[in-house]
Amino acid sequence: MDRYNPPGSRWKLAKRTGQMTHSALRELLKVAERPDVISFAGGLPSPALLPSDRIKEVLKRILETDAVGTLQYGPSEGYTPLREAIAEQLSSTGSTVYPSQVLVTTGSQQALDLLARVLIDEGSKVLIEAPTYLGAVQAFSQYEPQFEQVKSDDAGLIPSLLSQSQVQEARLLYTQPNFQNPTGRRLAPERRRQLAELSLANNLLVVEDDPYGDLVYKGGALPSIRSLASDTVVYLGSFSKILAPGLRVGYLVAPDDLMAKLVQAKQASDLHTAGITQRVAYHAFRNGFFASHLDELKVRYSEQCEIMLQSLELFMSPGVTWSRPEGGMFLWITLPTQLDASDVFVAAMQAGVAVVPGAAFYATEPQHNTLRLSFTTATSAQIRSGIELLGRIIEASLRQ
Amino acid sequence: MDRYNPPGSRWKLAKRTGQMTHSALRELLKVAERPDVISFAGGLPSPALLPSDRIKEVLKRILETDAVGTLQYGPSEGYTPLREAIAEQLSSTGSTVYPSQVLVTTGSQQALDLLARVLIDEGSKVLIEAPTYLGAVQAFSQYEPQFEQVKSDDAGLIPSLLSQSQVQEARLLYTQPNFQNPTGRRLAPERRRQLAELSLANNLLVVEDDPYGDLVYKGGALPSIRSLASDTVVYLGSFSKILAPGLRVGYLVAPDDLMAKLVQAKQASDLHTAGITQRVAYHAFRNGFFASHLDELKVRYSEQCEIMLQSLELFMSPGVTWSRPEGGMFLWITLPTQLDASDVFVAAMQAGVAVVPGAAFYATEPQHNTLRLSFTTATSAQIRSGIELLGRIIEASLRQ
Repeated sequence: MDRYNPPGSRWKLAKRTGQMTHSALRELLKVAERPDVISFAGGLPSPALLPSDRIKEVLKRILETDAVGTLQYGPSEGYTPLREAIAEQLSSTGSTVYPSQVLVTTGSQQALDLLARVLIDEGSKVLIEAPTYLGAVQAFSQYEPQFEQVKSDDAGLIPSLLSQSQVQEARLLYTQPNFQNPTGRRLAPERRRQLAELSLANNLLVVEDDPYGDLVYKGGALPSIRSLASDTVVYLGSFSKILAPGLRVGYLVAPDDLMAKLVQAKQASDLHTAGITQRVAYHAFRNGFFASHLDELKVRYSEQCEIMLQSLELFMSPGVTWSRPEGGMFLWITLPTQLDASDVFVAAMQAGVAVVPGAAFYATEPQHNTLRLSFTTATSAQIRSGIELLGRIIEASLRQ
Repeated sequence: MDRYNPPGSRWKLAKRTGQMTHSALRELLKVAERPDVISFAGGLPSPALLPSDRIKEVLKRILETDAVGTLQYGPSEGYTPLREAIAEQLSSTGSTVYPSQVLVTTGSQQALDLLARVLIDEGSKVLIEAPTYLGAVQAFSQYEPQFEQVKSDDAGLIPSLLSQSQVQEARLLYTQPNFQNPTGRRLAPERRRQLAELSLANNLLVVEDDPYGDLVYKGGALPSIRSLASDTVVYLGSFSKILAPGLRVGYLVAPDDLMAKLVQAKQASDLHTAGITQRVAYHAFRNGFFASHLDELKVRYSEQCEIMLQSLELFMSPGVTWSRPEGGMFLWITLPTQLDASDVFVAAMQAGVAVVPGAAFYATEPQHNTLRLSFTTATSAQIRSGIELLGRIIEASLRQ
């Protein structure tokens, strides 16, 4: 009989439990929240930019016009008008999405969990870009896959590195094509096409996770992978980065023949996402404050990104390189290989600057000399002085 | 390689997906919502009694006093003041609960999913009362256990039927000891003690699911199983039945040495439960409207229960028996064995009365001659005429 039996435990635990880990990153983020720390560590929207007044108005209206619908049990698939609004919005920017293909989830994290549950057996091959989003690794790991990393460069993951047996055998390929967490990179248009072709030719399910796609500052939006291969892509969206993470409202768009199983998994998980938060997302969409708020975020975040890029030019030693994000929240620094990012992290933390060592963002075989920086929550002045401090620490480390 | 491969599917699905089913009950409930139907089918709070005005006030206050905390990412364990309030409330009525032992979940359904994920491997033995709550069967089934049913009578599940190997080998035992869904029965005090002793003596994890315990109409509250065996019981509570199901806020209370893994599973599932809905539950507790609203529900539901019991006395044929609930939302009818409840269900539906055939509420080996009735959503007049109609249908079936 399979089971997980850690020394000293009196419980008979499921084998998969041995794969579950506590996110060290979340512990780190708690420290980074100290008011004396300049934090580039979080992946949070700026607290100063949360649209709380607009959400307060919307809440009042929801309870006045639809109290019973909001507070009673609802359908597992999600609030119908929200599914319609999401389908309409996505259809206006890419290929057609039908409301019946939209499943509202309790944050994007739940979409990852549902997909993993429906698709991954112990030992299943899962193709995942490297580096990648930590939350996806956590969600998938519970179901004990065998991860196969797909290398990436400045133009995102490299489809030509995938072997024929990989694309035929894998249960899914996971990617964040827009302003990826952690690198801030975009998948190049040509590679989107290559990936879409591989996906269609092999029924390789591509999980296109797109929480940052709306936050585009330069170069315009690129076509989604789903718009190139709607029949073999599951698209994931989120209201966490534009509206508010605390709402826990995300969604997935899936091919018709996957939807029934995903809805069953959703039903067994939490019956449905909260009525109140789904309606907040809906009204934000419909009365236009989502769009106006997004515009505001784009102005602020792009300025902060620009300041971080300028500061890096000023203060970084030769041999240090970094990504040049055209959107999103993150920027990725690669240190000369003789440096260990975790040493830089410790020294920076002591100097009052929080960054995240890049090793956290690999499903397997972490790289030792990378750092993730977010430019969304620090002020412009903090960004300048924080990058200056970080530059000095790296310079000192290189001299040792 | 394990996988689920239904005919015609082009996806490589996880083996567990074969265990997932759509809840036929939920489909049935949609039909039962037609305005011309007298519905005893739902498990819903009465829409007329949802405290929407109080929730509207609370929402306003939450956004005015703690907008950033509400809308930003929060801890996976839950909103600290809510965990403290739950611990305090439970400690005042049973044995001590520490806030660190409380995990806030996205409805009770998520608590069942997290427990299943952490505890159940393919083939693991799971002891489950018969009949039992359908949502628990759905949550557990995903992880492919071997269910072993524990028979019950008017005093709840019968611990003396458990063999020594069962209590030693099972990953968990699942029970709803108070006004169980579907039967409305309570587990007798003596059986609670027996179960607590078995649990402590064998480290048999008892999952005590208690969504209806507050809704007590007669005979006062009984000690929780957790209060008799806090070291080996996971206690599940919910705000769905008293406040509002659409909030999706529940909680579990677990022994310290299970909590870390449950929190990791929670983190991978949806990071945390929505900030808004957790704060609604907290304020409802703290400013006293939870208690006053509960008093109102108890008056109304106990009246409706009484009317249903009186109507059954008047209109049921000899040989039909039923439970006499002292709380909760449900009542359980046992028909003479020559009748099939699904025939009665169809005839009742044609006559405009919705009930649920009891066969839905078994993990294995369903019983054919039982019905679940809810007395919470129909009016008193509807209860009388609905039971009269049902009585006639049963009488006619017995004559055939």
